[in-house]
Amino acid sequence: MRRVSDVGEFGLIDRIARLAGRGDGREVPVGIGDDAAVLRLRRGEEVVVTTDAFVEGVHFRFDHETPATAGRRAGVGCLSDLAAMGSRPLGLLLALAVPPRLPLAVALGFVRGLLREARRAGIPLVGGNVTRAREVSASLTALGASARGRALRRDAGRAGDRLFVTGVLGRAGLERARGRVRHVGTARIDAGRALARLRSVGACIDVSDGLVADLGHLCRASGLAARLDVERLPRPRGFEAACRREGLGAERLLLAGGEDYELLFSVRPRGPGARELTRRLGLPVREIGALQAGPPRVWGVPAGAPGWRHF
Amino acid sequence: MRRVSDVGEFGLIDRIARLAGRGDGREVPVGIGDDAAVLRLRRGEEVVVTTDAFVEGVHFRFDHETPATAGRRAGVGCLSDLAAMGSRPLGLLLALAVPPRLPLAVALGFVRGLLREARRAGIPLVGGNVTRAREVSASLTALGASARGRALRRDAGRAGDRLFVTGVLGRAGLERARGRVRHVGTARIDAGRALARLRSVGACIDVSDGLVADLGHLCRASGLAARLDVERLPRPRGFEAACRREGLGAERLLLAGGEDYELLFSVRPRGPGARELTRRLGLPVREIGALQAGPPRVWGVPAGAPGWRHF
Repeated sequence: MRRVSDVGEFGLIDRIARLAGRGDGREVPVGIGDDAAVLRLRRGEEVVVTTDAFVEGVHFRFDHETPATAGRRAGVGCLSDLAAMGSRPLGLLLALAVPPRLPLAVALGFVRGLLREARRAGIPLVGGNVTRAREVSASLTALGASARGRALRRDAGRAGDRLFVTGVLGRAGLERARGRVRHVGTARIDAGRALARLRSVGACIDVSDGLVADLGHLCRASGLAARLDVERLPRPRGFEAACRREGLGAERLLLAGGEDYELLFSVRPRGPGARELTRRLGLPVREIGALQAGPPRVWGVPAGAPGWRHF
Repeated sequence: MRRVSDVGEFGLIDRIARLAGRGDGREVPVGIGDDAAVLRLRRGEEVVVTTDAFVEGVHFRFDHETPATAGRRAGVGCLSDLAAMGSRPLGLLLALAVPPRLPLAVALGFVRGLLREARRAGIPLVGGNVTRAREVSASLTALGASARGRALRRDAGRAGDRLFVTGVLGRAGLERARGRVRHVGTARIDAGRALARLRSVGACIDVSDGLVADLGHLCRASGLAARLDVERLPRPRGFEAACRREGLGAERLLLAGGEDYELLFSVRPRGPGARELTRRLGLPVREIGALQAGPPRVWGVPAGAPGWRHF
């Protein structure tokens, strides 16, 4: 079995560069292979940038999922932050740390999974870094573009805004609780961009830490409280039965599961409702509560419910 | 002694955010605290982005240097890549991985050192990520801006270009060999920007891996060979004597020391010489060789000299 140490730092970089291919020279004048990458914006756009770390034993385990699945999850996690800003993705950078004894196929499998999600978002890998380490980790940086002043933010909520969420919640948490991860969420890039064009949208965040935690971030940034209608939370078909079979609390997974990568956002009182938003975003949207005046706090969640946190 | 686990993920983020302060709202409309940061370019500029990893036991050791020195070196290493592109720095992102038992003062000392170098480059920390890991590592992303089509590149060398280097070489290697790191290089931001304005400049790279290795990168990217005049390499005052005292090879440190973070660049035959470049860049510039036609290879370096590599 070939190991990373058999090809060395530059051998690994060459292989990653070959898998990545070349981006569009007009949008990426300088890609992999220089001291930095150069990316081109359109007129009137701002740069949007986010960085995310993905550590073996913390965010993924190779005995729970294939390297490609881990790589896909890393990619989706980072791209989801661009989706939450309503941004047009431009490019991805990967800082990969691997033990020298890691099988080369594992490292490249991870990169292939990551590249699959980058391609799905229509963007190239434009740069990165490879280093030796004791454990596998990947730090991803995603770059995007937003029309000036139009990026979605966590702090733009107002009292009276209704709260909506895309898709369904709880599926990723259920898989993780089962100890076998095959499903990978979707970065809601197109939905985020559609939201950024709607003037009646308030705050937006992606559901990565879990619904209550992320709603808490949104509340704190906006200086508001929120009321959640737990019974209205959208869940996968057969979710309660599956949870019962596994001895898991369905409500806990809905509220605190994490990694759903759906968009949680607020809309002004006169803005569109769930039906119209579903049409505009091209995927199911459900109204699940509202923002209200008061110190940051999520109401409607059982006190002491798992995942609930004071802030 | 307080440990990172005593303040938790969000406690650590809050402390880092407080140390970082707030950037200029006009250039950074959205900074730390949202899903991503938003940065504004000037008209006609492109985004320049680079990511770099800095791993305990590989790139730094807390028994060889203070946390602040390690943080400063991490910052300089990343900013130096922007300097090599001739870019105007815009902002920095930090993905920090720490063991829960790490003393809080060590984590914050590292961040303070990093922020010192960011301030020196005139830029804010605009975002990042904190995660648990078994070893300390920091992945840095630096964003900059370059006038459209004017970023310096490794692949822009031509046969006949003369080779120049800023400052002196070997000092960082000498400190590392002594096992006690106090000196921290300087990211040559202003010099890089001055070079990007000169039409007669060819290829550019920063000396991070070591002079011969980095000249090799430049040669390979440009499809050229290079001739080095080893006796002309600029070295610190008293360098040979210091190397003798420590039993170290001076030439080895000059050629392969690494982390000097000086700029290595080529200039067309009709472009300015060392004296004029010294005036324009505001720091000593020395002519050290030339680019020539032929397969990528560095001539003038003793065959088998430490640090020399085939490519």
